[in-house]
Amino acid sequence: MHQAQHRLVVETTHRGLFEFTSEVARWLAAQAIETGLLTLFCRHTSASLLVQENADPDVRRDLEAFFARLVPEDRDIYVHADEGLDDMPAHIRTALTQVQIAIPVASRHLLLGTWQGIYLFEHRHAPHRREIVLHLIGE
Amino acid sequence: MHQAQHRLVVETTHRGLFEFTSEVARWLAAQAIETGLLTLFCRHTSASLLVQENADPDVRRDLEAFFARLVPEDRDIYVHADEGLDDMPAHIRTALTQVQIAIPVASRHLLLGTWQGIYLFEHRHAPHRREIVLHLIGE
Amino acid sequence: MHQAQHRLVVETTHRGLFEFTSEVARWLAAQAIETGLLTLFCRHTSASLLVQENADPDVRRDLEAFFARLVPEDRDIYVHADEGLDDMPAHIRTALTQVQIAIPVASRHLLLGTWQGIYLFEHRHAPHRREIVLHLIGE
Repeated sequence: MHQAQHRLVVETTHRGLFEFTSEVARWLAAQAIETGLLTLFCRHTSASLLVQENADPDVRRDLEAFFARLVPEDRDIYVHADEGLDDMPAHIRTALTQVQIAIPVASRHLLLGTWQGIYLFEHRHAPHRREIVLHLIGE
Repeated sequence: MHQAQHRLVVETTHRGLFEFTSEVARWLAAQAIETGLLTLFCRHTSASLLVQENADPDVRRDLEAFFARLVPEDRDIYVHADEGLDDMPAHIRTALTQVQIAIPVASRHLLLGTWQGIYLFEHRHAPHRREIVLHLIGE
Repeated sequence: MHQAQHRLVVETTHRGLFEFTSEVARWLAAQAIETGLLTLFCRHTSASLLVQENADPDVRRDLEAFFARLVPEDRDIYVHADEGLDDMPAHIRTALTQVQIAIPVASRHLLLGTWQGIYLFEHRHAPHRREIVLHLIGE
């Protein structure tokens, strides 16, 4: 049994979903591990990880619109607003989704479903560099 | 240290929670691994996984009712509706819950709490065959 | 490759977020594993786990207030209320967050981001003893 670790950076340009499935798959294919478990961990409190539909871009737009409605940027309902009106909503949206996802691996491929892609869900309006730790264990 | 992988199918008949704890426990008991970590991964974007209360069926009904209210089937608020009015709500409900859960294992048993069961949360009205990948690592 | 398991108890005094990052870090530092993956699993259906902002306490207050608004204690909208008005909201809040989080480890340290702490999210008003299973694998 072996393990490997890597840090991947996802550059975001605005609030919404950014796919990075191919970056993960490329790193995985270069490892000496055929079968195992790949864990992704997002090192931020205002961005999260989602496995979501990878076909119609409208799904990503509707997802972003739903979270914007559910967690409004409203000066009156939050105490914490150090970094602006999108600060506290970003923390709440991160809590409602997740910072970690583990995906089984076989034949050096992620066992994702046909329509599943891996997304960084950026919750701030401004561009950010988001660091994701990859941990692979298997043989 | 060893690992094992398996694919389990959960057949759903309607929107709501379907328990499959015993199917997982049965597979686990047949593996040559005493202590370790079991990861479940749902290969879909309109169904998810939940660890929830396994006693009162009203909990499952109230959970389904809450998510139906939170993510309404409303033609006017989503762009994406390729597969019907429950299409986009299904993706959103999946994002609000999770497609992966890992549970520690000891003495070939899942270390679930007394009231915890493993559920497939079906987010579409029509029946579906949902594929769950199980990955077990340990010794 | 080795593994270790531990049970940690978090005592809560009210609804809200309770940090226990240092308890986890202390146990981790005592293990003979340098690099690997640490999984935390909460054995309850009315408390969950969050990785969240560890600087400004207002973030925790705003998070609790958001979830209290999103999942109101309303006698009329839930069937299940065996343990009081906060019973069903506690299950729903658990479903909206998560009972399991895995964090990569390097040099015997959790690879958390600068502003990330590990929290038990208590969803009941009364004090509880919450049991968290830790599972560490690596070398």
